[in-house]
Amino acid sequence: MITPQLIKPKSIAVVGASDNLGKPGGKVLYNIKNGNFDGELYAVNPKHERIQGVPTFKSISDLPQTDLAILAIPAKLSLPAVKGLLEEKGTKAVIVLSAGFSEMGPMGRKMEQEMSRLAERHQATLIGPNCIGVMNPYHQSVFISPVPEMEWGGAALVSSSGATSVFILESALSKGLAFSSIFSVGNGGHTCVDDVLEYLNDTYEHGRSPQSILIYIESIRKPQLLLRSARELVAKGCRIAAVKSGISDAGGRAAASHTGAMLNSDMAVDALFRKAGIIRCNSRSELTAMGALFQHPRLKGKRIAIITHAGGPGVMLTDLLSTGGMEVPRLSDELMQGLREELFEGASTANPIDILATGTAEQLERCITFCEGLDTIDGMVVIFGSPGLFSNIDVYRVIREQQNICRKPVYTILPSILNAKEEMDQFVQAGGVLFDDEYLLGNALLSESRYVAPVTEMEGVRLKNAEKISELLKGRKGLVDIRTGFELLDLMEVKRPMHLMTSSETEAMDAARKIGFPLVMKVVGPLHKSDVGGVVLDVTTPDAVRTHFSRLIGIKDATGVELCQMERGLELFVGVKKEPCFGHLITCGLGGIFVEILNDIQYALAPVGMSEALQMIRSLKSYKLLQGARGKEGISEEVLADVICKVSGLLTLVPEIEEMDLNPLIGHGRHLSAVDVVIRMGGAQ
Amino acid sequence: MITPQLIKPKSIAVVGASDNLGKPGGKVLYNIKNGNFDGELYAVNPKHERIQGVPTFKSISDLPQTDLAILAIPAKLSLPAVKGLLEEKGTKAVIVLSAGFSEMGPMGRKMEQEMSRLAERHQATLIGPNCIGVMNPYHQSVFISPVPEMEWGGAALVSSSGATSVFILESALSKGLAFSSIFSVGNGGHTCVDDVLEYLNDTYEHGRSPQSILIYIESIRKPQLLLRSARELVAKGCRIAAVKSGISDAGGRAAASHTGAMLNSDMAVDALFRKAGIIRCNSRSELTAMGALFQHPRLKGKRIAIITHAGGPGVMLTDLLSTGGMEVPRLSDELMQGLREELFEGASTANPIDILATGTAEQLERCITFCEGLDTIDGMVVIFGSPGLFSNIDVYRVIREQQNICRKPVYTILPSILNAKEEMDQFVQAGGVLFDDEYLLGNALLSESRYVAPVTEMEGVRLKNAEKISELLKGRKGLVDIRTGFELLDLMEVKRPMHLMTSSETEAMDAARKIGFPLVMKVVGPLHKSDVGGVVLDVTTPDAVRTHFSRLIGIKDATGVELCQMERGLELFVGVKKEPCFGHLITCGLGGIFVEILNDIQYALAPVGMSEALQMIRSLKSYKLLQGARGKEGISEEVLADVICKVSGLLTLVPEIEEMDLNPLIGHGRHLSAVDVVIRMGGAQ
Repeated sequence: MITPQLIKPKSIAVVGASDNLGKPGGKVLYNIKNGNFDGELYAVNPKHERIQGVPTFKSISDLPQTDLAILAIPAKLSLPAVKGLLEEKGTKAVIVLSAGFSEMGPMGRKMEQEMSRLAERHQATLIGPNCIGVMNPYHQSVFISPVPEMEWGGAALVSSSGATSVFILESALSKGLAFSSIFSVGNGGHTCVDDVLEYLNDTYEHGRSPQSILIYIESIRKPQLLLRSARELVAKGCRIAAVKSGISDAGGRAAASHTGAMLNSDMAVDALFRKAGIIRCNSRSELTAMGALFQHPRLKGKRIAIITHAGGPGVMLTDLLSTGGMEVPRLSDELMQGLREELFEGASTANPIDILATGTAEQLERCITFCEGLDTIDGMVVIFGSPGLFSNIDVYRVIREQQNICRKPVYTILPSILNAKEEMDQFVQAGGVLFDDEYLLGNALLSESRYVAPVTEMEGVRLKNAEKISELLKGRKGLVDIRTGFELLDLMEVKRPMHLMTSSETEAMDAARKIGFPLVMKVVGPLHKSDVGGVVLDVTTPDAVRTHFSRLIGIKDATGVELCQMERGLELFVGVKKEPCFGHLITCGLGGIFVEILNDIQYALAPVGMSEALQMIRSLKSYKLLQGARGKEGISEEVLADVICKVSGLLTLVPEIEEMDLNPLIGHGRHLSAVDVVIRMGGAQ
Repeated sequence: MITPQLIKPKSIAVVGASDNLGKPGGKVLYNIKNGNFDGELYAVNPKHERIQGVPTFKSISDLPQTDLAILAIPAKLSLPAVKGLLEEKGTKAVIVLSAGFSEMGPMGRKMEQEMSRLAERHQATLIGPNCIGVMNPYHQSVFISPVPEMEWGGAALVSSSGATSVFILESALSKGLAFSSIFSVGNGGHTCVDDVLEYLNDTYEHGRSPQSILIYIESIRKPQLLLRSARELVAKGCRIAAVKSGISDAGGRAAASHTGAMLNSDMAVDALFRKAGIIRCNSRSELTAMGALFQHPRLKGKRIAIITHAGGPGVMLTDLLSTGGMEVPRLSDELMQGLREELFEGASTANPIDILATGTAEQLERCITFCEGLDTIDGMVVIFGSPGLFSNIDVYRVIREQQNICRKPVYTILPSILNAKEEMDQFVQAGGVLFDDEYLLGNALLSESRYVAPVTEMEGVRLKNAEKISELLKGRKGLVDIRTGFELLDLMEVKRPMHLMTSSETEAMDAARKIGFPLVMKVVGPLHKSDVGGVVLDVTTPDAVRTHFSRLIGIKDATGVELCQMERGLELFVGVKKEPCFGHLITCGLGGIFVEILNDIQYALAPVGMSEALQMIRSLKSYKLLQGARGKEGISEEVLADVICKVSGLLTLVPEIEEMDLNPLIGHGRHLSAVDVVIRMGGAQ
């Protein structure tokens, strides 16, 4: 919960204030005092009368009522301070800058938890500990520099690491990004990144709230809250990008299903971000590049005109965009004739439009105006550096003017970080947002062009036999036996081949007669049947049934032999794995080498509806095979999507399912049959 | 050819010199005058007596003998100027800065060619036109800024685009890169990038020549020269990185073979760079990051210790390196105990080693010294920014000191481009090389870690039946008939299945008896047999032979039906495509979906010897299948490599081959048989 006192306090007290600007308690007081805050500002320090000219109190108990308190005192003094503030001073927001809490061990964790409990009890917000603070248009309660002017309409930055948010800020400001608020939540024991997102969503006002949000997050505490808040913000028009770090420890754990072994918690993050409409970035530079993109009008297509005064960067950007799936469409001579006459001889208007090293500000302006009017162009990139002969002031002024006039985005690459440094600084001061490298912009454009808006449906299908299914799986723990599995498939109306279990040669011969040839024989018992040679395909004679039975029943852990109708066609799979807190991940793909050698899988967080299921299927590398390639019949994507939706429906009904494999699903055309099913319920067997 | 007069001229004349530093003719004179050049400097300008204090002549004919001339005059005046200099003034090197030549059309191209011819005739070097010039420790003949101090041992930068080399320079200098020479070759009509590489190789001196070379190249004029020069430089210890731009127009052309359709000229560039030992980059920032890496000692393994005062960037870098195949190995508590005691409470020594926000220069020094001594660590990354509370001068000084002491590379990420700007500038002035973003360094490290040193063997195998093979293919043009193809395979000692051609049902029945069942029937005539349903596998009875024959012979363009022994096992292919100037690209991969759906191919420039062939095979995504996966027998990689080497040997023998497909090659274990062969020779049929 974020209280109004954190956002717009009437009074702020800095506890542990100092005259030394090299200390957090000195710097934070300085920043507040010299920032936008216009309420009552107090300092607390037992040794001074007045600090930085601010009324100073010997202790917290001496303070008048205080809305927001900032603690810059050692960890062990923080807990009593928080207690005093909340209980005696009516404080509703506390920012604890100090480190030395849960990151230091059990002692610190205890103190941190106690502070959280106090905040909870008093319905106050606790930010930190171990953070740099909060800034917004009302106050700059941070102990760091730089302290940029906070602008309504600028981006919000929410970070779980203090130092990282400083570095992000430095990278962002040098690109000209504007911010409206910065929340550094530190350890986030009480207020985590997810809570801030909820707040931004709950208080969202069109035209005033941030139109873009940049997130650095180390651990997602409340995935479902993040999901809901981000989805709603995105639906309101907000653009969100995030770095989730700490992926390399996303190791595999023991799993009972193939799916369980394939999916890890980092994939759950991926799936969550996709479903929420958050663009995932891998680094500070990617995040701030995405932020810079967000401060332009939204690109409404994939067709880019590049206007440059230097060939090289234009060609490199064209390479990157074209190979990444965007377009730098050739502009015909006829179309461009009018423009051509206004440029110097030798200029190229084919796109990239190269106005030559000697190109002028006026020519650039004409090019931008011209492209703004072209139906075949969705956005422009201007590249303009300097070999150091003359100033670029006029050129950069024209770019700013045109950015304000054009409906299409005009992205700016200014590569001359030394030769045109002053002009670039002025461009930024005039409100411009720039990239100094074409690669960074190009990759950001590609990321946004690949972005798929989250589907609005949040519900999976409702299963027809819901009650019977619940009854069937009720109270089960651990692995579910294959008979129950097949019964479940029948109730879910997922097709499966005719099959019979046998435990003697005679039974096997009888079963073969009933099913008919060709058939499949599988050992029952061992988990990974293929690995122990426990599956025989295409058994075509009674003699073969006899021979294989005697071999299969001899395999370690064998309890019987199953005979099935032989399905023919493509092998697919659909699987489920439950990720703690995140919920169920549903995965699908082609079986065999595709999953085992090429790891060609797609996954999404449940619930998954028809359109999301189709998105998954169409994103498979092997999608062409599903469509029918190389003269072979494919499989209807709707039929596969239907199975995914039914599995999603099952998970809504029976959330206790921990893992599930429908593997293989075999079929062709609109026929798709689950040949095997593995289900593991929560709890030990 | 590059003459000594370009490198170390005794006299330089600037033709078109000016007092206006906003003009190339003014700036280039200024740069030479204020640079290291200590020979005779002249200006040529009809209107002035003395320009920038330099003796000025009215015309070229008035000049004394001049080693190097720089032309900053309009294009149409350049040709007579070059003529005058070469014929009358004994000039052996000319740099033409002016644009307006081949890039402007036929007229300009003619002038450019004429200048080249003149240079050729007089054994002089012509650099440009349309370039920024040349700088090295002897002279700074460029019209741009910045003009960095050229240092022996710094990198060489060779660029075919003037503006791009300025932007590369700006990016590089801000990272602290040192340069020893910069060659901007412009249109490169006479001296292209490849020629400069040849020069750098021919004049290579250990300890004095550049240890690293950065290249920006738009078109590779002399691929074989580039290949040879780069390979030799790399063998001498040089590290080379290059951007080759202009890949997006690498379109497919009409091709007679699958291989021909799959490979394009950009792949030839890839293959060339790999064979040459050049690391390919995609952007300026990647190129300069690689250059920054090159100015550190070579990393001798994949194990990195990260020493940081801020968690976030360390975690992001760990994510990147670990998922990319490098290691940030956990350092055990026992091992690190000694170090732990010297750090503040709460610091982590597990790796990343986090010395906390309050960590000191002394602690950092201890950490670096400690890691330098660890057997389990190959290199270090130090991350140190600033929240703006105090100066980082001491910390950055310690890093520089340690970099000079340590045998292992100590890479430096300094993220505080605003808060620690001054300290970063000082770090660079003290000779430091820095990265401001962990992602850029991480990706550069990964690129170098994936780098495979070029194999030293440059020869393919010699084929046994060389004479007979030459005879067989001599004078052939266009597509080679299948009989000849099979004869060739026999001569090359590449296995193939028994096959018989038939043109009547009776012949087909006879053939089936001779070959035995199962067999394969294929239509002869149509090019893409599978697409027209012209291949039947697994024919097992005489009746089936009869039925299929009558259908196959009825297919459009059918001239007969071929019956083959049915091969079983994995389907592979080996193919060849000739790229103009580059030579032959040899490709291999698994057939079927792997090549058609997943585009899983590897390729190399011929000649390919055994170790390079094995590298290709091991780089396939489907390599695991070759090794034998999922309970199925694989195919000996040596046997496949042997086929590749034989094909390479064939190309040495018969370079007129334009395209070739051995597709499919089917087999298992050490048996591998070419089921079909398509060869297209140069020239029309």
